[in-house]
Amino acid sequence: MPREITAFSNPLIKRMRRLRDKRHRRTEALFLAEGLRILTEAREAGHLPQYLFFTAGSADHMLVEALVAATEAAGGDAIQTNADILSKLSGKDNPGAVVGIYQELPTGLPRLDRGAADIWLVAERLRDPGNLGTILRTADAVGAGGLILVDDCADPFSVEAVRASMGALFTVPIARASRDEFIAWLRQGPGQLVGLSLDTDHDYRDPAYTAPVFLLTGNEAQGMPQEFADECDLLVKIPMHGKADSLNAAIATAVMAYTVLDRLPRR
Amino acid sequence: MPREITAFSNPLIKRMRRLRDKRHRRTEALFLAEGLRILTEAREAGHLPQYLFFTAGSADHMLVEALVAATEAAGGDAIQTNADILSKLSGKDNPGAVVGIYQELPTGLPRLDRGAADIWLVAERLRDPGNLGTILRTADAVGAGGLILVDDCADPFSVEAVRASMGALFTVPIARASRDEFIAWLRQGPGQLVGLSLDTDHDYRDPAYTAPVFLLTGNEAQGMPQEFADECDLLVKIPMHGKADSLNAAIATAVMAYTVLDRLPRR
Repeated sequence: MPREITAFSNPLIKRMRRLRDKRHRRTEALFLAEGLRILTEAREAGHLPQYLFFTAGSADHMLVEALVAATEAAGGDAIQTNADILSKLSGKDNPGAVVGIYQELPTGLPRLDRGAADIWLVAERLRDPGNLGTILRTADAVGAGGLILVDDCADPFSVEAVRASMGALFTVPIARASRDEFIAWLRQGPGQLVGLSLDTDHDYRDPAYTAPVFLLTGNEAQGMPQEFADECDLLVKIPMHGKADSLNAAIATAVMAYTVLDRLPRR
Repeated sequence: MPREITAFSNPLIKRMRRLRDKRHRRTEALFLAEGLRILTEAREAGHLPQYLFFTAGSADHMLVEALVAATEAAGGDAIQTNADILSKLSGKDNPGAVVGIYQELPTGLPRLDRGAADIWLVAERLRDPGNLGTILRTADAVGAGGLILVDDCADPFSVEAVRASMGALFTVPIARASRDEFIAWLRQGPGQLVGLSLDTDHDYRDPAYTAPVFLLTGNEAQGMPQEFADECDLLVKIPMHGKADSLNAAIATAVMAYTVLDRLPRR
């Protein structure tokens, strides 16, 4: 049976609120996701929250009922609360009907199976959690094997990244590695490392791509460092027809990913 | 000569701060942009601020100097201030060296010249200002003639939209119209209205696109209403290979726009 918490001063609420802070997420190895759509997507991918907060008014909703039942069956804690507390937990004015607290997902590089997909996304020092979440959502859409975060990227378990991923955080494997670790792993097997760059004349539509393609996007402001560009098997550029010299990093990644997908032979 | 303001209580600061509110932007017909890169892009496109706020420490920077000189030459007001006030104006912890207050740009539909470009972007009830700004940035990159905002969209002059546009707000013409106004205008001349939809079997890579293409993206959560879909000359779909059923609206727009650009004959 769900228990009820309606006091801001409740220690569990206070503790869960702190998960908006990266340091606390790391210490607790927990993170927060919000909204019925994302939590349902998570459930369908086999992920249930350790704590599920839902509003009294939403308890009749079929999908909320299903989440409560599944959470409790898996040994999690379903907690009825109010909209104010949900807002406080998620930091959003209109947090939707549910907030779930999940155990952090594994992010080890060696567990990825490069043979599982023709395309993989790689981001280097990606700083914006919204971009990171959007790239996860795109990774799901193109059927990528996973997203590999190289060096100091935004936290994929931040509320903003989880929100922008629209649930893809639960369906797309994520790995974190230093550049050296990534390159060492990559070169243990087949893999074409394709870097998006502004400093090349190779149009992104021209090359022959060979699966598995690892599509590398650099830092939003600086792109990737020269040493990383030197490791790439190919550098390609998306043509710019206007005044600006670059696209948003998540946009460039998606345009590239769909183009690579279009060019690779179907398996 | 620039004057100096360092008091939060200064009436001009108070008034400019209110521009973060949509109602005040409308009343004043002014909006706020921040950061040296965006303000410089604006200047190069011929737009100078009515008020330019800069920090004392940045005044030696060549680009800040150039902005101050150009603003004053054009009859604008250059105001030296401190980082705290810049933060307060932009609502950002780290606002960069400059904040500019600009007169709202024209958004009339009839002034657009459809012959000026092969591709135009159209967004319907787009709610997220970050998506709107990102779509503007993409519009610039693909050389689109402009962005047409149909019905109740996010405000293109909000700080978030201006920020995400990375200056494209100043280089890409924007129009606002109701659906009826837009359709009436569109049908006065050539133009292929291509709608992004989840409810069609037509792959986005298959059709013969004919310039000028008007690429229509619907609301983030609901897509476009059936009546708008019925007006389209073509409905196309970007294939989804994962668990989720849709892409982020700005991502889908960009993937489509680059594909249309690739398929159209070069002029």
